[in-house]
Order: sequence, then C-alpha cells, then structure tokens
Amino acid sequence: MSNAIPKIVILGAGYAGILTAQKLQKQLNFNEAEVTLVNKHDYHYITTHLHMPAAGTDHPENAKVKISSIIDEMKIKFIKSTVHSISVEDKKIQLDNETLHYDYLVFGLGGEPETFGIPGMKENAFMIRSINSVNLICEHIEYQFAKYKNDETQKDRITFVVGGAGFTGIEFVGELADRLPELCERFNVDPKEVKIYNVEAAPTALPGFDPELVEYGMEVLKNKGVEFKIGVAIKECKEDGVIIGENEEIKARTIVWTGGIRGNHMLEEAGIEVMRGRVKVDEYLRVPGHENIFVIGDNALIFNDEGRPFPPTAQIAMQQGVNCASNIISTIGNHSLTTFKPEIKGTVASLGKGEAIGIVGKKKLKGWSAAQMKKVIDNRYLFIIGGVPLVVKKGRFFG
Amino acid sequence: MSNAIPKIVILGAGYAGILTAQKLQKQLNFNEAEVTLVNKHDYHYITTHLHMPAAGTDHPENAKVKISSIIDEMKIKFIKSTVHSISVEDKKIQLDNETLHYDYLVFGLGGEPETFGIPGMKENAFMIRSINSVNLICEHIEYQFAKYKNDETQKDRITFVVGGAGFTGIEFVGELADRLPELCERFNVDPKEVKIYNVEAAPTALPGFDPELVEYGMEVLKNKGVEFKIGVAIKECKEDGVIIGENEEIKARTIVWTGGIRGNHMLEEAGIEVMRGRVKVDEYLRVPGHENIFVIGDNALIFNDEGRPFPPTAQIAMQQGVNCASNIISTIGNHSLTTFKPEIKGTVASLGKGEAIGIVGKKKLKGWSAAQMKKVIDNRYLFIIGGVPLVVKKGRFFG
Repeated sequence: MSNAIPKIVILGAGYAGILTAQKLQKQLNFNEAEVTLVNKHDYHYITTHLHMPAAGTDHPENAKVKISSIIDEMKIKFIKSTVHSISVEDKKIQLDNETLHYDYLVFGLGGEPETFGIPGMKENAFMIRSINSVNLICEHIEYQFAKYKNDETQKDRITFVVGGAGFTGIEFVGELADRLPELCERFNVDPKEVKIYNVEAAPTALPGFDPELVEYGMEVLKNKGVEFKIGVAIKECKEDGVIIGENEEIKARTIVWTGGIRGNHMLEEAGIEVMRGRVKVDEYLRVPGHENIFVIGDNALIFNDEGRPFPPTAQIAMQQGVNCASNIISTIGNHSLTTFKPEIKGTVASLGKGEAIGIVGKKKLKGWSAAQMKKVIDNRYLFIIGGVPLVVKKGRFFG
Repeated sequence: MSNAIPKIVILGAGYAGILTAQKLQKQLNFNEAEVTLVNKHDYHYITTHLHMPAAGTDHPENAKVKISSIIDEMKIKFIKSTVHSISVEDKKIQLDNETLHYDYLVFGLGGEPETFGIPGMKENAFMIRSINSVNLICEHIEYQFAKYKNDETQKDRITFVVGGAGFTGIEFVGELADRLPELCERFNVDPKEVKIYNVEAAPTALPGFDPELVEYGMEVLKNKGVEFKIGVAIKECKEDGVIIGENEEIKARTIVWTGGIRGNHMLEEAGIEVMRGRVKVDEYLRVPGHENIFVIGDNALIFNDEGRPFPPTAQIAMQQGVNCASNIISTIGNHSLTTFKPEIKGTVASLGKGEAIGIVGKKKLKGWSAAQMKKVIDNRYLFIIGGVPLVVKKGRFFG
C-alpha cells in the first residue's frame, strides 16, 4: 500500500453495502480513507418488501430509499453505475464509463437467481429482484387480466404459479392472494376462475422453520385460495406454463420463481473460488488469499454450528456490513480483527394483510401479533439506516 | 303478423339502441308491444369517452353505465348475451343460450374496425372499441414501460404509433400525450426517450373539419410531443412496428388503429345487401326489402346532400334511435312514418386536458372554451339517458 490514504470501494448499496458505508462514515476520521460507494441505481431498495409491489399491494416507492438521503456525500463518494468486472490482480473495477482503483474492496452486490438448471426457468419466469423487476411482475399480472377479459377461453392468463415456498415465495403468494379480489373487481372477473399454485420441491414449505408455524401459515394461505404442491419439483418452465412432478402440466402465463439465490457471476469471473457463485469467506468475511477483499451479503457463504450454510438474509447482511466496516478500520489501523458470528434475533414471514408467522427470540408468534412484529422489524430497519425521518416517511404502521 | 302483441327486439345497447329502448319505453302503451333489449354486457358504454381509459387518463368505470339504471325492466326485458346470427326468413335471432323471435328488429350492434386490408393490422394493432379493449390498451402501455425499464435498449417499448388522425385518433393521442409524463415519473423513464407518432393516409388530419381548427389542434398536439405523419399510409403492421410511406419503419410495440369503422359482419351473413358491411337504409332507417328491420348506428349508411356518407357518430346514432322508436310505433299503429334527417348540432374534438377544437352551430371554438363545450355535450348526453342522477355520478365538470 502506498503512503496515500487507502481507497475503499464498496460495490452495491443493498443491506450489506449500505451498512458498511454508514459505519465507515461514522467511524473513519478525516483523511483516514477515501470511501466510494457504487450502485446501479441512485436508490437503495428494501428487498424484504419487494413481494408487496410485485403483487401490487404496496407502492414501489415505499420500497425505495434515495441513497443521498442516507449517506453523507461529503464523506462518501457515490457513483451511480453498473459494475462490469473486477480485476483482482490490478485491484481495479470496471464501471460503465470509468475504472476505479481500490485498496480495500467490499463486494456487496446482489446474488442471482438459482434456477437449478430447470429448462426454461431463466427465460420464462419472473424474479423478485429489484424495483424494476417487481414493477414488471405487477404490470404483467394486470395485463393478463386485461387479456383474459378480451378472450375468456384463455384461463392461463388468470392462473399464477409461484415456484418455491421459501420466505420470498410464501410472502409473495400471501400478497398475491390479497391482491386478486381487487383485480377481479376491476376487470370484472369471477374470483372462482383465478388460480394460484405454490410449488415447492422440498418436502415442506419454509424448510427449516418451525413445523407448527408452517402448518398455521399454510392454512392461512389455503383459506385465501392458494393451492400448494409440496414435495413436487418443477421439471420445466415454458412461456405458457410449467411441467411439474410426474409430467403434470399447469397452464399459466405468469410464473414467478423464488426458488433460490446463487452468488454473483463476477466473483467467479475474477478468478475467486466459489460454490454456487458464493465465496466461502474467512472468519473476518475476507476472500481467502485476497485479504483486502471482503464479501458480504448474498455472496458470502458462512456456516452454522451444524455445518449448514446460513441463508442470505437481510438480518445477516446488515450484521456483516457492520463487522466488515469495523474490520477494514482495524486493518488500516493495524488493530486486531473481530470474528463475524451471525446473531439470529428473529424471523418473521408475512402471510399478507394482518397475518404472519415468526420466531422472535425463542417465542413463536402467529396471526396479528406476528404481523405487528413484522412491522416493528421493518420500521427498526428504516430507523437504523435513516433515523426517525425515514421511519416517518416509509414506515408501516397500519393494516 | 299474428294477433298477439308484436315483439320488438333491439340488438345492442349503444347510443342508438339505448335511445330506441328509452323512447319505446316512454311512448308505448301497456300491452302495445313486447320489447327486448339484447347486449353483450350488462352495461352501456360511452364510446366517445373510451380514448380516456385507453390512455389511462380516466377510470374505465366513468365510461360505463349499468343498463338496469337507465331502462325500466318492468317495461323492457333485458337479456345479457352475445348475438350470434340473424335469420331474416324465420325472423329469429340466435343468442348464446336461446333463440329469440321478432316481429320488428332494431339492429344497433356496433361496427367493426376497417383495416383496409393493411397486412397485420387486425392481428397486431389495438382497437378502441369497448371497455375490455381499452383496459387492454391501458395495461399494455404500462407493461411496456415496465419492460423497457428491465432492458433500456428496447426503445420500441416506449414508442407509440396511432394509426388514423380522425376524431378517435386525435382524441386518443391527446390523452396519451397527457398520460406519458405520469408514466415516465412512475417508471423513472426520461420523457425525451418516449415517442408518439400519429400516422394518417389522408392529406390532412380530421379530414372534412375546419382547416383553421385542424391547424390549431395539430399545433397543440405537437407541443405535447406528438409527431405527425400526414399523407403517409401504413403499409404493414407488425408485432414490433409499422412500415409507412416509402418503406420507412417505425419500431413500436404499441400500435393503436383508429383508421375506420365498417359494418357488423352479421348483416351480410344474414343475406342483407351491404357496402363495407353497412346497410344503405331507406328514409325511415329500414332495410330495403325488409321493412320490419331497422338498422341504426354504426351500420346505417346514410348520405348528406352532397351524396357523401355521414360518418358514424354518437350524435347521429342517438337521433336515429329516437326516429326508429317513433317509426316502429307508427308502423304498429298504422300511422305515417317520419323521414330521418340528421341534424348536426356541433362537433367538438378533445385534445387532452383543457384543450379542444370544435364547431357548435356556426361558431368555431378552440382551447378552453371548446374543452368546456365538450363537457357540456358529454353531460347533456348523460342527462338524456340517465337524468340528473347520472350527470351527478359520471359527469365531467373540472379540468
């Protein structure tokens, strides 16, 4: 490293990247480092809310937070750009119109959908990934209703298949089931004609979650009209439907895939060793062999005490952001680093309006109380990144 | 005709059919005739408003009027059904699930788009025809914005071609130009990237209308961003664009055809002589050779003093409904019939919010005063079919 002040580049302003930036901004002294944050959009989005604008039950603006409102641009340089590639040897990042040099790199870009090689899934299914992708889902759904009303033989226009009954899948079908009555009324469609299928290859919905709560959650969703196909794999995804299980076909023009996340392709392309695109980081969240590169969020592969990988969640990403910022500062100051250990405070899955299931601490919650807890968690996040003003602006209090 | 009371069947609850039904209901005495009104939907729609929900500048509900709210079902039997065919010999109408017998038939079904054999137009263009078809246009437009934001190389997603600069075409581009800023903001699209073309084969927009007003109207629309291609024919309509003039291609995913109306195919299929699907009716609006069949609205071909056909307008359709009802009653009562002669009170074309052009009596109107006159005409129609309550419910007073 030269005598110049070290350059820290953070890629991605998701949960992990934003928390890293905010902690660096707070803890770095003047002239201790030059911090640059790169993001494709000039807004951060609250990924855990995206299932709502995707179904059209909430305005997409409520899932967007302007980056300039939550970082101090006097301390952190923000660049709106797409990241194209990383050169680990040259310590360079290729952006749209410029090349950045880094001394420390924080890789916090989002992962990519894992389609497990299911034919046609990548081409034909929608993914809940970004503001733009959920706007597309929402508009697509409304367009299907309008199409159906111009040719009521096309039942596939009002049949919806959600692939995957993990957190995103379950939360999305809950919202979708809540939205359909409004669409039926708007387009004058008989609600009995509309079908929602939730297809999951694992032997249960929400694998790994408390079975009693899973059962409760499925009951809530069934009562809203969701038909589950659990333990049934999607064999193929076509433009007009899916083939599931033993060659059963569901004709549907809307297939939303929520079945999994893998790491960002750029890491492997940079010559870094990955497993399903994710990097098995060291205890300080660094890439083995590249101690100046921290990988956090979707792309960091870390294991629990039973040797099972943690799923990529907002909760862990935020904790990684804090740890990563602190470890970079320690590295610069030649202090000892802090081991990263996720602390799972709780997990709540929304099931649509007024319904949720969750575990907070050791307490199981369901129904209204779980839904209230979900709002508390959401508002707490807004408070962390934007203080009271952001809670007031985007917080959820009712319903 | 038997001694039983005569059966009058009205097909279609558009301007012409509704006015016929209402006049019969008012003027027929008890047991003088049995009147049945058949319509595909249980609502009447205000066709002259459809350009607004098509562009998304007004809610489609505002263009809908429940038929049960404007006819007296004690006096008129309403059947919600599609009409499949007419047998002139047997005096029968085939509906979805029943066959109706008539002594007098009023054919008031809507016309069909006239695409002049332009290849691909019928398959690939949208038409402003019904509540369902305009909902489709509106949802399609929004979907294109969402698609564009997921791949900004696809400029054809935000390029809009309106074929035809007659009344419907001009009124639709006016609304579309008004709508786009909102869509650009919602989807975060630069308005400079969005294009609206209005293509007209005739040497002028609004052929036959006052040239000074046409010039004013085009200026208003150009200032809103509309690009006119006047005297330029559409040679072909494809899924992703149009070929116009001398082989110029405009890449666009949204093509709305407003270029013309022809008669309903069922008339020709019934063995009635037609010109472009329309029937050259006699002076009492009857089909020559079938004096118990009245054709009114889109399908009635009548000529002005210079021997040119009148365009099918709401104004004339309404007058035909009144005349037709009166002539049926006269026929039943063996009184002499009344010759139909359209009385053109005025014509106003809207150019979007707060702007219009028109001629009322001999007076030319433009700008705000014309826009107010448009509202007066619209509200007057609501008053005619539904009295004060309908004006209060669906009337337009502001903006």
